[in-house]
Amino acid sequence: MHAAPAKQDYRDAMARLGASVHIVTTDGPGGQAGFTASAVCSVTDDPPTLLVCLNRSASVYPAFDANGVLCVNTLGAGQQDLSALFGSKTPMAERFGAASWGRLATGSPLLASALVSFDCRVASRMSVGTHDVLFCEVLALQRQPSVQGLIYFDRRYHEVLAAPA
Amino acid sequence: MHAAPAKQDYRDAMARLGASVHIVTTDGPGGQAGFTASAVCSVTDDPPTLLVCLNRSASVYPAFDANGVLCVNTLGAGQQDLSALFGSKTPMAERFGAASWGRLATGSPLLASALVSFDCRVASRMSVGTHDVLFCEVLALQRQPSVQGLIYFDRRYHEVLAAPA
Repeated sequence: MHAAPAKQDYRDAMARLGASVHIVTTDGPGGQAGFTASAVCSVTDDPPTLLVCLNRSASVYPAFDANGVLCVNTLGAGQQDLSALFGSKTPMAERFGAASWGRLATGSPLLASALVSFDCRVASRMSVGTHDVLFCEVLALQRQPSVQGLIYFDRRYHEVLAAPA
Repeated sequence: MHAAPAKQDYRDAMARLGASVHIVTTDGPGGQAGFTASAVCSVTDDPPTLLVCLNRSASVYPAFDANGVLCVNTLGAGQQDLSALFGSKTPMAERFGAASWGRLATGSPLLASALVSFDCRVASRMSVGTHDVLFCEVLALQRQPSVQGLIYFDRRYHEVLAAPA
């Protein structure tokens, strides 16, 4: 009665989960790389740890694997183009050329205009099917005053605006 | 220069991440239980697998630990009260009494009015700090026609509405 769902059915169902959009970056011996991700979530605040899911067949995988550090840059309202750019096949130099970047603790590129950035070292990982789940200890973070959010839900972007102060 | 962020700074930063709100349920030898969660994300579609982060000190932890199955019920617009109820200390019978439920493959309570439900067995887990990350293989799913979403962002609810067909 209950056959496991087909991949496409699962994808269609997952489209019903809304989430923030992030540009996840790295730099180091494996080179500079960045990609757009929504599979990011908080794990614990003791010690401050988040997770990022990364397809092992992704072109950016070797860079993240070699560097062992990353920065999660959470996008805000109006940054849809940057999301699309880092989710495309555009060469890395051109992707990073489209915005301003800083560095915090690990040297991973920090998007100056991100709503919030989490600079992390990959503390452990687990392979699950096609993906690695990277458990990332947060070493430093930076917040912008703005809280105009960007959510991907039902296969399109939605802007969510903060309550008036 | 870059001291690790304090717990409260990390929590304030994480409030900038928007996410869907879910009622995660279980039933079995460990009893019926359910709680409100936002730390849920997709891991891979091969095999269809999602993850749920659960505090080992949560009152519901023993039930989920004993049962090894769960259902992730994603809430939609207008279900803020249900989210608050399952995030409160209200007794389980009263929580479940507030809505209509069904069952799919595992016997975990499926919220009839959820935007989408993922019925799962816990395939593996990993302990990270205070939490267990439960990797859940999706055995069955159910979608409602509605795609009016509910997002928790900046410590309040936001409704996100689907594009016109």
